[in-house]
Amino acid sequence: MDCASRLLALLLLFRFSIFCEAFYHSPNEGSLVVRNISKMPESNFGREGFSHITIAGAVLHGMKEVELWLQTFTPGSRTPIHRHSCEEVFVVLKGRGTLMLASSSHKYPGTPQEYPIYANSTFAIPVNDPHQIWNNDEHEDLQMLVVISRPPVKVFIYNDWSMPHTAARLKFPFYWDQEVLHEPKDEL
Amino acid sequence: MDCASRLLALLLLFRFSIFCEAFYHSPNEGSLVVRNISKMPESNFGREGFSHITIAGAVLHGMKEVELWLQTFTPGSRTPIHRHSCEEVFVVLKGRGTLMLASSSHKYPGTPQEYPIYANSTFAIPVNDPHQIWNNDEHEDLQMLVVISRPPVKVFIYNDWSMPHTAARLKFPFYWDQEVLHEPKDEL
Repeated sequence: MDCASRLLALLLLFRFSIFCEAFYHSPNEGSLVVRNISKMPESNFGREGFSHITIAGAVLHGMKEVELWLQTFTPGSRTPIHRHSCEEVFVVLKGRGTLMLASSSHKYPGTPQEYPIYANSTFAIPVNDPHQIWNNDEHEDLQMLVVISRPPVKVFIYNDWSMPHTAARLKFPFYWDQEVLHEPKDEL
Repeated sequence: MDCASRLLALLLLFRFSIFCEAFYHSPNEGSLVVRNISKMPESNFGREGFSHITIAGAVLHGMKEVELWLQTFTPGSRTPIHRHSCEEVFVVLKGRGTLMLASSSHKYPGTPQEYPIYANSTFAIPVNDPHQIWNNDEHEDLQMLVVISRPPVKVFIYNDWSMPHTAARLKFPFYWDQEVLHEPKDEL
Protein backbone atom coordinates (compact mmCIF):
# COMPACT_ATOMS: atom_id res chain seq x y z
CA MET A 1 0.00 0.00 0.00
CA ASP A 2 1.54 3.32 -1.02
CA CYS A 3 1.59 6.47 1.10
CA ALA A 4 -1.50 8.06 -0.54
CA SER A 5 -3.58 4.90 0.02
CA ARG A 6 -2.46 4.73 3.65
CA LEU A 7 -3.43 8.39 4.13
CA LEU A 8 -6.83 7.76 2.50
CA ALA A 9 -7.43 4.71 4.73
CA LEU A 10 -6.54 6.80 7.80
CA LEU A 11 -8.91 9.58 6.74
CA LEU A 12 -11.74 7.08 6.15
CA LEU A 13 -11.09 5.54 9.58
CA PHE A 14 -11.23 9.02 11.14
CA ARG A 15 -14.56 9.80 9.36
CA PHE A 16 -15.94 6.43 10.49
CA SER A 17 -14.99 7.15 14.12
CA ILE A 18 -16.89 10.47 13.93
CA PHE A 19 -19.92 8.62 12.50
CA CYS A 20 -19.79 6.03 15.32
CA GLU A 21 -19.47 8.71 17.97
CA ALA A 22 -22.55 10.49 16.59
CA PHE A 23 -24.75 7.40 16.56
CA TYR A 24 -23.68 5.42 19.61
CA HIS A 25 -23.32 6.98 23.02
CA SER A 26 -20.02 6.73 24.75
CA PRO A 27 -20.41 6.70 28.56
CA ASN A 28 -17.66 9.29 28.87
CA GLU A 29 -19.37 11.81 26.59
CA GLY A 30 -22.17 13.25 28.70
CA SER A 31 -23.40 15.49 25.91
CA LEU A 32 -24.26 12.51 23.69
CA VAL A 33 -26.39 10.80 26.35
CA VAL A 34 -28.15 13.86 27.77
CA ARG A 35 -28.99 16.40 25.06
CA ASN A 36 -30.08 20.01 25.39
CA ILE A 37 -33.33 20.33 23.40
CA SER A 38 -32.81 24.06 22.84
CA LYS A 39 -29.55 23.27 21.00
CA MET A 40 -31.09 20.63 18.73
CA PRO A 41 -31.55 21.34 15.02
CA GLU A 42 -34.90 22.95 14.23
CA SER A 43 -36.51 23.45 10.82
CA ASN A 44 -39.83 24.33 9.20
CA PHE A 45 -39.13 21.96 6.28
CA GLY A 46 -40.62 24.50 3.90
CA ARG A 47 -43.90 24.81 5.81
CA GLU A 48 -44.73 28.37 6.79
CA GLY A 49 -45.55 28.97 10.47
CA PHE A 50 -44.17 25.58 11.52
CA SER A 51 -41.18 24.42 13.54
CA HIS A 52 -40.06 20.83 14.16
CA ILE A 53 -37.37 19.32 16.39
CA THR A 54 -36.81 15.56 16.50
CA ILE A 55 -36.09 15.03 20.22
CA ALA A 56 -35.53 11.28 19.83
CA GLY A 57 -35.82 9.75 16.38
CA ALA A 58 -35.29 6.57 14.41
CA VAL A 59 -33.22 8.05 11.57
CA LEU A 60 -31.38 10.59 13.71
CA HIS A 61 -30.83 8.72 16.99
CA GLY A 62 -31.42 5.04 16.25
CA MET A 63 -34.75 4.71 18.11
CA LYS A 64 -36.61 1.57 17.05
CA GLU A 65 -39.99 1.69 18.80
CA VAL A 66 -40.84 5.27 19.79
CA GLU A 67 -40.08 8.71 18.42
CA LEU A 68 -40.55 12.16 20.03
CA TRP A 69 -41.00 15.52 18.36
CA LEU A 70 -41.38 19.09 19.59
CA GLN A 71 -43.60 21.02 17.17
CA THR A 72 -44.70 24.65 17.17
CA PHE A 73 -47.46 26.19 15.05
CA THR A 74 -47.84 29.96 14.71
CA PRO A 75 -51.39 31.42 14.75
CA GLY A 76 -53.34 30.27 11.69
CA SER A 77 -51.02 27.38 10.75
CA ARG A 78 -52.01 23.73 10.66
CA THR A 79 -50.93 20.20 9.78
CA PRO A 80 -52.12 18.64 6.52
CA ILE A 81 -55.12 16.30 6.79
CA HIS A 82 -53.33 12.97 7.20
CA ARG A 83 -53.29 9.48 8.71
CA HIS A 84 -50.60 7.01 9.77
CA SER A 85 -50.60 3.39 10.84
CA CYS A 86 -49.13 3.97 14.30
CA GLU A 87 -50.13 5.22 17.72
CA GLU A 88 -49.70 8.96 18.32
CA VAL A 89 -50.03 10.91 21.56
CA PHE A 90 -49.89 14.69 21.94
CA VAL A 91 -49.14 16.78 25.01
CA VAL A 92 -49.94 20.47 24.54
CA LEU A 93 -47.24 22.56 26.22
CA LYS A 94 -48.36 26.05 25.16
CA GLY A 95 -51.25 27.75 23.38
CA ARG A 96 -54.55 26.43 22.09
CA GLY A 97 -56.07 25.10 18.90
CA THR A 98 -58.42 22.55 17.40
CA LEU A 99 -58.08 18.83 16.76
CA MET A 100 -60.13 17.69 13.74
CA LEU A 101 -60.61 13.93 13.88
CA ALA A 102 -62.40 11.67 11.40
CA SER A 103 -62.82 7.93 11.09
CA SER A 104 -61.10 5.25 9.03
CA SER A 105 -64.18 3.03 8.98
CA HIS A 106 -65.91 4.53 5.92
CA LYS A 107 -64.75 5.00 2.32
CA TYR A 108 -63.51 8.55 3.02
CA PRO A 109 -62.98 10.57 6.25
CA GLY A 110 -66.17 12.70 6.03
CA THR A 111 -66.89 15.71 8.24
CA PRO A 112 -64.44 15.55 11.16
CA GLN A 113 -65.33 15.97 14.82
CA GLU A 114 -63.76 19.10 16.33
CA TYR A 115 -62.18 19.18 19.77
CA PRO A 116 -60.62 22.18 21.48
CA ILE A 117 -57.04 21.53 22.64
CA TYR A 118 -55.22 23.69 25.19
CA ALA A 119 -52.07 23.94 27.32
CA ASN A 120 -51.71 20.93 29.64
CA SER A 121 -54.13 18.80 27.65
CA THR A 122 -53.38 15.45 26.02
CA PHE A 123 -55.00 13.39 23.29
CA ALA A 124 -54.25 10.19 21.39
CA ILE A 125 -55.03 9.66 17.70
CA PRO A 126 -56.48 6.19 17.04
CA VAL A 127 -54.33 4.20 14.56
CA ASN A 128 -55.18 5.17 10.95
CA ASP A 129 -57.80 7.81 11.82
CA PRO A 130 -57.44 10.87 9.54
CA HIS A 131 -56.77 14.05 11.52
CA GLN A 132 -55.59 17.62 11.36
CA ILE A 133 -54.42 20.07 14.00
CA TRP A 134 -54.97 23.81 13.67
CA ASN A 135 -53.65 26.70 15.66
CA ASN A 136 -56.77 28.83 15.29
CA ASP A 137 -55.78 31.19 18.09
CA GLU A 138 -55.11 34.72 16.86
CA HIS A 139 -52.14 35.53 19.05
CA GLU A 140 -50.32 32.63 20.67
CA ASP A 141 -48.10 29.86 19.28
CA LEU A 142 -49.32 26.28 19.78
CA GLN A 143 -46.49 24.05 21.03
CA MET A 144 -46.82 20.30 21.44
CA LEU A 145 -44.76 17.24 22.32
CA VAL A 146 -45.68 14.44 19.93
CA VAL A 147 -44.99 10.74 20.52
CA ILE A 148 -45.39 8.11 17.79
CA SER A 149 -44.81 4.36 17.69
CA ARG A 150 -43.35 2.39 14.74
CA PRO A 151 -40.89 5.05 13.54
CA PRO A 152 -40.00 6.37 11.04
CA VAL A 153 -43.51 7.68 10.34
CA LYS A 154 -45.28 6.79 7.07
CA VAL A 155 -47.77 9.58 6.37
CA PHE A 156 -50.77 9.44 4.00
CA ILE A 157 -51.95 12.93 3.02
CA TYR A 158 -55.52 13.92 1.99
CA ASN A 159 -56.46 16.97 -0.11
CA ASP A 160 -59.75 17.28 1.79
CA TRP A 161 -62.10 15.33 4.07
CA SER A 162 -63.99 13.80 1.14
CA MET A 163 -60.96 12.20 -0.53
CA PRO A 164 -61.19 8.36 -0.39
CA HIS A 165 -58.67 6.73 1.98
CA THR A 166 -57.26 4.79 -0.95
CA ALA A 167 -56.46 8.04 -2.82
CA ALA A 168 -54.45 9.62 0.02
CA ARG A 169 -50.80 10.09 -1.06
CA LEU A 170 -47.99 8.35 0.82
CA LYS A 171 -45.18 10.71 1.81
CA PHE A 172 -42.25 8.54 2.87
CA PRO A 173 -39.72 9.32 4.11
CA PHE A 174 -41.47 12.25 5.76
CA TYR A 175 -39.83 15.69 5.61
CA TRP A 176 -37.73 15.43 8.78
CA ASP A 177 -36.56 11.90 7.97
CA GLN A 178 -35.64 12.80 4.42
CA GLU A 179 -33.65 15.93 5.20
CA VAL A 180 -31.77 14.65 8.25
CA LEU A 181 -30.36 17.46 10.33
CA HIS A 182 -27.39 16.37 12.38
CA GLU A 183 -26.85 17.55 15.93
CA PRO A 184 -24.40 20.38 16.38
CA LYS A 185 -21.41 18.85 18.19
CA ASP A 186 -19.41 20.88 20.71
CA GLU A 187 -16.58 18.36 20.68
CA LEU A 188 -15.48 18.75 17.06
CA MET B 1 -89.40 -11.78 33.93
CA ASP B 2 -90.76 -10.15 37.08
CA CYS B 3 -90.44 -6.48 37.99
CA ALA B 4 -87.35 -6.92 40.24
CA SER B 5 -85.51 -8.84 37.48
CA ARG B 6 -86.38 -6.17 34.95
CA LEU B 7 -85.12 -3.45 37.31
CA LEU B 8 -81.91 -5.39 37.90
CA ALA B 9 -81.40 -5.86 34.14
CA LEU B 10 -81.94 -2.14 33.64
CA LEU B 11 -79.44 -1.28 36.38
CA LEU B 12 -76.85 -3.66 34.89
CA LEU B 13 -77.38 -2.11 31.45
CA PHE B 14 -76.86 1.36 32.96
CA ARG B 15 -73.62 0.25 34.70
CA PHE B 16 -72.39 -1.31 31.43
CA SER B 17 -73.08 1.92 29.53
CA ILE B 18 -70.96 3.85 32.08
CA PHE B 19 -68.17 1.27 31.65
CA CYS B 20 -68.30 1.61 27.85
CA GLU B 21 -68.28 5.38 28.02
CA ALA B 22 -65.19 5.29 30.23
CA PHE B 23 -63.20 2.98 27.96
CA TYR B 24 -64.19 3.97 24.44
CA HIS B 25 -64.29 7.54 23.28
CA SER B 26 -67.49 8.81 21.80
CA PRO B 27 -66.91 11.54 19.19
CA ASN B 28 -69.56 13.65 20.90
CA GLU B 29 -67.79 13.61 24.25
CA GLY B 30 -64.86 15.99 23.80
CA SER B 31 -63.62 15.44 27.34
CA LEU B 32 -62.86 11.76 26.65
CA VAL B 33 -60.74 12.48 23.56
CA VAL B 34 -58.91 15.55 24.86
CA ARG B 35 -58.02 15.22 28.53
CA ASN B 36 -56.87 17.86 30.99
CA ILE B 37 -53.64 16.50 32.54
CA SER B 38 -54.09 18.60 35.68
CA LYS B 39 -57.38 16.77 36.35
CA MET B 40 -55.91 13.28 35.89
CA PRO B 41 -55.47 10.98 38.88
CA GLU B 42 -52.09 11.41 40.59
CA SER B 43 -50.51 9.17 43.22
CA ASN B 44 -47.19 8.49 44.93
CA PHE B 45 -47.97 4.75 45.12
CA GLY B 46 -46.43 4.65 48.59
CA ARG B 47 -43.13 6.22 47.52
CA GLU B 48 -42.25 9.32 49.51
CA GLY B 49 -41.37 12.42 47.47
CA PHE B 50 -42.80 10.96 44.27
CA SER B 51 -45.80 11.75 42.09
CA HIS B 52 -46.97 9.84 39.01
CA ILE B 53 -49.68 10.54 36.42
CA THR B 54 -50.31 8.12 33.54
CA ILE B 55 -51.00 10.56 30.68
CA ALA B 56 -51.65 7.77 28.16
CA GLY B 57 -51.42 4.18 29.33
CA ALA B 58 -52.04 0.59 28.28
CA VAL B 59 -54.08 -0.48 31.30
CA LEU B 60 -55.86 2.86 31.77
CA HIS B 61 -56.42 4.05 28.20
CA GLY B 62 -55.91 1.03 25.95
CA MET B 63 -52.58 2.12 24.43
CA LYS B 64 -50.77 -0.81 22.77
CA GLU B 65 -47.39 0.51 21.66
CA VAL B 66 -46.44 3.61 23.66
CA GLU B 67 -47.15 4.91 27.15
CA LEU B 68 -46.61 8.40 28.62
CA TRP B 69 -46.10 9.40 32.23
CA LEU B 70 -45.65 12.68 34.08
CA GLN B 71 -43.41 12.11 37.10
CA THR B 72 -42.25 14.52 39.78
CA PHE B 73 -39.47 13.91 42.34
CA THR B 74 -39.02 16.18 45.36
CA PRO B 75 -35.44 17.13 46.39
CA GLY B 76 -33.55 14.03 47.57
CA SER B 77 -35.94 11.46 46.07
CA ARG B 78 -35.02 8.93 43.39
CA THR B 79 -36.18 5.93 41.38
CA PRO B 80 -35.05 2.44 42.37
CA ILE B 81 -32.10 1.01 40.43
CA HIS B 82 -33.95 -0.87 37.69
CA ARG B 83 -34.04 -2.07 34.08
CA HIS B 84 -36.76 -2.88 31.56
CA SER B 85 -36.83 -4.51 28.15
CA CYS B 86 -38.26 -1.51 26.28
CA GLU B 87 -37.19 1.84 24.92
CA GLU B 88 -37.54 4.80 27.30
CA VAL B 89 -37.14 8.51 26.59
CA PHE B 90 -37.21 11.32 29.16
CA VAL B 91 -37.88 15.01 28.66
CA VAL B 92 -37.02 17.11 31.72
CA LEU B 93 -39.67 19.81 32.17
CA LYS B 94 -38.49 21.34 35.47
CA GLY B 95 -35.59 21.08 37.90
CA ARG B 96 -32.33 19.19 37.75
CA GLY B 97 -30.86 15.88 38.87
CA THR B 98 -28.56 13.00 37.95
CA LEU B 99 -29.00 10.05 35.63
CA MET B 100 -27.00 7.00 36.77
CA LEU B 101 -26.58 4.58 33.88
CA ALA B 102 -24.88 1.18 33.86
CA SER B 103 -24.53 -1.55 31.27
CA SER B 104 -26.33 -4.83 30.67
CA SER B 105 -23.31 -6.40 29.01
CA HIS B 106 -21.56 -7.72 32.15
CA LYS B 107 -22.74 -10.05 34.92
CA TYR B 108 -23.90 -7.13 37.11
CA PRO B 109 -24.35 -3.39 36.46
CA GLY B 110 -21.14 -2.19 38.16
CA THR B 111 -20.33 1.45 38.92
CA PRO B 112 -22.75 3.57 36.88
CA GLN B 113 -21.81 6.55 34.73
CA GLU B 114 -23.32 9.78 36.08
CA TYR B 115 -24.85 12.43 33.84
CA PRO B 116 -26.34 15.75 34.93
CA ILE B 117 -29.92 16.25 33.71
CA TYR B 118 -31.67 19.63 33.62
CA ALA B 119 -34.79 21.46 32.42
CA ASN B 120 -35.20 21.18 28.64
CA SER B 121 -32.82 18.22 28.37
CA THR B 122 -33.66 14.79 26.97
CA PHE B 123 -32.11 11.34 27.24
CA ALA B 124 -32.95 7.81 26.14
CA ILE B 125 -32.22 4.70 28.20
CA PRO B 126 -30.86 1.86 26.05
CA VAL B 127 -33.07 -1.27 26.24
CA ASN B 128 -32.22 -3.33 29.36
CA ASP B 129 -29.54 -0.97 30.72
CA PRO B 130 -29.87 -0.61 34.53
CA HIS B 131 -30.45 2.99 35.57
CA GLN B 132 -31.56 5.28 38.36
CA ILE B 133 -32.67 8.91 38.42
CA TRP B 134 -32.02 11.16 41.41
CA ASN B 135 -33.26 14.59 42.25
CA ASN B 136 -30.11 15.68 44.07
CA ASP B 137 -31.03 19.35 43.95
CA GLU B 138 -31.64 20.79 47.40
CA HIS B 139 -34.58 23.03 46.59
CA GLU B 140 -36.44 22.34 43.35
CA ASP B 141 -38.72 19.50 42.23
CA LEU B 142 -37.57 17.45 39.23
CA GLN B 143 -40.43 16.96 36.76
CA MET B 144 -40.16 14.75 33.68
CA LEU B 145 -42.27 13.41 30.85
CA VAL B 146 -41.44 9.75 30.35
CA VAL B 147 -42.20 7.72 27.21
CA ILE B 148 -41.87 3.94 27.07
CA SER B 149 -42.52 1.36 24.36
CA ARG B 150 -44.05 -2.12 24.86
CA PRO B 151 -46.49 -1.18 27.66
CA PRO B 152 -47.36 -2.14 30.34
CA VAL B 153 -43.83 -1.86 31.76
CA LYS B 154 -42.10 -4.93 33.24
CA VAL B 155 -39.58 -3.64 35.77
CA PHE B 156 -36.60 -5.56 37.23
CA ILE B 157 -35.37 -3.98 40.47
CA TYR B 158 -31.80 -4.17 41.86
CA ASN B 159 -30.81 -3.70 45.53
CA ASP B 160 -27.50 -2.14 44.46
CA TRP B 161 -25.17 -1.81 41.48
CA SER B 162 -23.33 -5.05 42.27
CA MET B 163 -26.43 -7.28 42.20
CA PRO B 164 -26.26 -9.76 39.26
CA HIS B 165 -28.78 -9.02 36.49
CA THR B 166 -30.27 -12.48 37.01
CA ALA B 167 -31.01 -11.68 40.68
CA ALA B 168 -32.97 -8.46 39.98
CA ARG B 169 -36.61 -8.88 41.09
CA LEU B 170 -39.42 -8.58 38.55
CA LYS B 171 -42.20 -6.22 39.69
CA PHE B 172 -45.15 -6.82 37.38
CA PRO B 173 -47.66 -5.34 37.16
CA PHE B 174 -45.82 -2.17 38.21
CA TYR B 175 -47.39 0.05 40.88
CA TRP B 176 -49.46 2.28 38.59
CA ASP B 177 -50.72 -0.66 36.52
CA GLN B 178 -51.65 -2.67 39.58
CA GLU B 179 -53.57 0.03 41.39
CA VAL B 180 -55.46 1.48 38.43
CA LEU B 181 -56.80 4.92 39.16
CA HIS B 182 -59.79 5.79 37.03
CA GLU B 183 -60.27 9.22 35.56
CA PRO B 184 -62.61 11.55 37.44
CA LYS B 185 -65.64 12.04 35.21
CA ASP B 186 -67.42 15.39 35.01
CA GLU B 187 -70.41 13.85 33.29
CA LEU B 188 -71.60 11.63 36.16
